[in-house]
Amino acid sequence: MNTNEKGVTYPQGFTAAGVACGLKKNGQPDVALVVCPDGTTAAGIFTRNMVKGHSLQLCRSHVAGGAARAVLINAGNANACVGPRGIADAESLCRMVAGLLGCASAEVLPGSTGVIGIPLPMEKMAEGIDKAIAELSDEGGDMAARAIMTTDTHSKQAGVSLTIGGREVRIGGMAKGSGMIHPDMATMIAVITTDAAIAAPLLDTALRQAADVSFNRISVDGDTSVCDKTLLLASGCSGVTIEAGTEEYRLFMEGLTRVCGILARMLAADGEGATKLLTIEIKNAPTAQDARFIAVAIAKSPLCKTAAFGRDANWGRVLTAAGYSGAFFNPDKVDMYIGGLPVCRDGGGLPFDEDEALRILSEKEVTYTLDLKQGAYSDFMWTCDLSYDYVKINGSYRS
Amino acid sequence: MNTNEKGVTYPQGFTAAGVACGLKKNGQPDVALVVCPDGTTAAGIFTRNMVKGHSLQLCRSHVAGGAARAVLINAGNANACVGPRGIADAESLCRMVAGLLGCASAEVLPGSTGVIGIPLPMEKMAEGIDKAIAELSDEGGDMAARAIMTTDTHSKQAGVSLTIGGREVRIGGMAKGSGMIHPDMATMIAVITTDAAIAAPLLDTALRQAADVSFNRISVDGDTSVCDKTLLLASGCSGVTIEAGTEEYRLFMEGLTRVCGILARMLAADGEGATKLLTIEIKNAPTAQDARFIAVAIAKSPLCKTAAFGRDANWGRVLTAAGYSGAFFNPDKVDMYIGGLPVCRDGGGLPFDEDEALRILSEKEVTYTLDLKQGAYSDFMWTCDLSYDYVKINGSYRS
Repeated sequence: MNTNEKGVTYPQGFTAAGVACGLKKNGQPDVALVVCPDGTTAAGIFTRNMVKGHSLQLCRSHVAGGAARAVLINAGNANACVGPRGIADAESLCRMVAGLLGCASAEVLPGSTGVIGIPLPMEKMAEGIDKAIAELSDEGGDMAARAIMTTDTHSKQAGVSLTIGGREVRIGGMAKGSGMIHPDMATMIAVITTDAAIAAPLLDTALRQAADVSFNRISVDGDTSVCDKTLLLASGCSGVTIEAGTEEYRLFMEGLTRVCGILARMLAADGEGATKLLTIEIKNAPTAQDARFIAVAIAKSPLCKTAAFGRDANWGRVLTAAGYSGAFFNPDKVDMYIGGLPVCRDGGGLPFDEDEALRILSEKEVTYTLDLKQGAYSDFMWTCDLSYDYVKINGSYRS
Repeated sequence: MNTNEKGVTYPQGFTAAGVACGLKKNGQPDVALVVCPDGTTAAGIFTRNMVKGHSLQLCRSHVAGGAARAVLINAGNANACVGPRGIADAESLCRMVAGLLGCASAEVLPGSTGVIGIPLPMEKMAEGIDKAIAELSDEGGDMAARAIMTTDTHSKQAGVSLTIGGREVRIGGMAKGSGMIHPDMATMIAVITTDAAIAAPLLDTALRQAADVSFNRISVDGDTSVCDKTLLLASGCSGVTIEAGTEEYRLFMEGLTRVCGILARMLAADGEGATKLLTIEIKNAPTAQDARFIAVAIAKSPLCKTAAFGRDANWGRVLTAAGYSGAFFNPDKVDMYIGGLPVCRDGGGLPFDEDEALRILSEKEVTYTLDLKQGAYSDFMWTCDLSYDYVKINGSYRS
C-alpha cells in the first residue's frame, strides 16, 4: 500500500473544483464541488447532535438512496437554525447542480459549514456553483480541500494506492475541522472517494468500520457540531469489485482505514490553538466500555489538556480524569507512562526524571499510556493540547 | 432569615483555627481545625471519582459513625495516590488530634487538598496540629476558611440566622475550590456547621437535599477531583431539635439551602480565571433528565464558555451543546434568551440588538435561558467563563 497526500480526485472518475463566491470574508475559496460518474455509490455518517443543519438533513436523506453524482459543500455559512427556508435553500442548491450536470436532484449531496443562524446568500451560492462547474478538473481535489476549510490552518488530504486482484485501486480523501471545536464555523467534514466498485450497503458498513477507529477517535474539546459528517463515494472506475467477507474487502478496509486515520490525526493535530498531538492509550481495562470511557474522559479534560500545553508531567490529573470517566476499575492497580517514562505504578506516584519528562512533553506528538492491569480491553483517542490560542480563537469569533 | 458572611464558628458550640505549618510555599495558613462539643452529629457527601484521596477515604468511614468532635483539613498536599502509607498517615493525624482533644480517633474527620502523588510531610503536620489546637477560638472561622484555600482568590463563608420555635438557630459554612477545576491543588471542600440538634440520619438527608440544588449545580470545567467533599456538623447547642417532616425541618432546610447556595455560587464565580458567573436555566423540558443533561452540557462546553468570556452572543453554540447533551427534544421548538434578550425562537435565529447583547454580556452575572416549550421540567447550573487565565493557571501549575 502506497500512501500519498493526494485527495478526492486521486481515484479514477472524480473531478472537483474549489472556488470563491464571497462567503468567506477573506476572499478564499468557499465552495467545493466533487463530481462523479453515473453508477457511483454513496454512504455517509452524520452528527448525532439533536440540532442538525438543514443542508446536513437533506444530505442524509439523499445518501439514503445509495447513489451520488456530486457533492456540494460551502464554507462560511452553516445553513443551520434559520427556520423553514433552510431546507428549501438546500433543495434549491441541489436542483441547480442537478440541472447543470443532468442528474437527479437526489443524487447531489449538499453540505454547509460556518456561522449558525444566518440564511445562505443564495445569489452568491448560484454564482459559486456556476464557477465550480466551469472549473471542474481531475486535478481539482486540492482546491476543493481548500474551499471546505474554516479555521483550519492548512488543508487536509490523504490518498492510498492498493493492489487488489492484480489491479490498482485508489482511495483519496479530504477533511476539514479543527477537531470538533468550532460548531459555528462548525464542523468536521470529510469526503472520501474510491474507484473500487462497492454496493451501497457494503460501502456503508465499510465507512462505519473505518470511521470507528479514526474520526470517532478524535476530540478537541468534546463539543460536537450540528454539521459533522463523513461521506464515502465509490465510482467503480478501477474495474475492481469489492464483495463482503472477501480478501479484497480486507485489503480495501486496510486502505480505507489508513486514509481515514491519516485525516483524523491531521484534524486532531490542527485543533484550534493546538501545539501538539496527544494520543491517549488505554490498555488492559476490564471491559471495552471502561477502556473507551477512560480514553474519552482524558481526551476531553481541560485540565489534562492545559497541563500538556504547559509541558507539565501532571499524571495526577490524568488518573483523576480516568476516575470520573464513569469506568469501573481499581485505581490501585494502574500504571501510567508519559511517552516511555513510567510516572505511576499501582496507583502511586513514582520518582521520575523531570528533565526527561519535559523533553518528551516538548515533542509535537506525545502519548499518555494507562495500563489498568485488570482486563484485556484496549482503546485510544487522539486529541490536542489546550492553549491560550484556543481561548483567543473561540472567545472572539462570530463575524 | 438573616444572611451574613460569618462561617463555621457562627453557630454555637464551634471553635476553629487556621494556621501555617509550611505546606503552602507562600507561608499562608494551610491547616484548618474545627472543634465541636461531645454529642455533635455529622454527615458527609464524597466524590464519586473512582480514585479517592486517602484522607477522604478515612473521613468517609469516620462520618459513617454519625458523630464528630473535630474536622482537620490541610491544603497544599492531597494525600492521594501515595500508596499504603496514605491511609496510615491520615490515621496518624486523627490519632494526634484525638489525643489532644481527648476523644476517639474515629470522631476526627480528616481532609487534604493539594498536589497528588507526594506523601504528606508528617512532621510539619504535627506542628500544625499543635499550633491549631493552641489557637482554637470561637472567632477562628475566618482563619480556618483561609487555611483551606488553594487557588481561590478569596476565602468563602456564609451564615444564616433562623428563628425556629421562637429560638435562634444558626447555620454557618466555609468552602474552597475554584469550581472543580483544580484536581491537584484539588478539590471542592465545604464544611457547614449548625447549632440545631439533628440525628445523624436526618442530617445526612438534609445535606443531600441542600447539596443537590447547590454544590451539585456548579461546574467550572467538568473535571471532578479525588478529594471533593462536603461535611455538615450539628452541635445541638441552640437547644432546638429538628425532626423529620416538621415545619421546623422545612425552616431549617430553607436556611441550609441558602448557606449552601451562597457558597456554591461563590465557588462558580471564583472559577479559575473566571470573569463572570453564568447561570444556565432550562425550562419546560420533556423530562427532568433532559433538563439536567442540557444544563450540564452547556455549563461544561468550552465553546460556550469562551464565547461568554469574549462577550459574544453566540447562541448557536448554546443550542449546539443542548443538541449533543444526550437529551431528547425537538430543536425546532426551542426559544433562547441572553439575560432578557430573545435571540432565538422556535430553533431559528432572531435579529437582535448587538449593543444590548454586549451590554448584558459585560455584566458580572449573565443568565442563558433555554425554553424548550415541550414539557414541564426545569433545571439550572452555575458556571463561569473560560479565559486566558484558566489556561495560564492550569498550564503552569504543579509545584
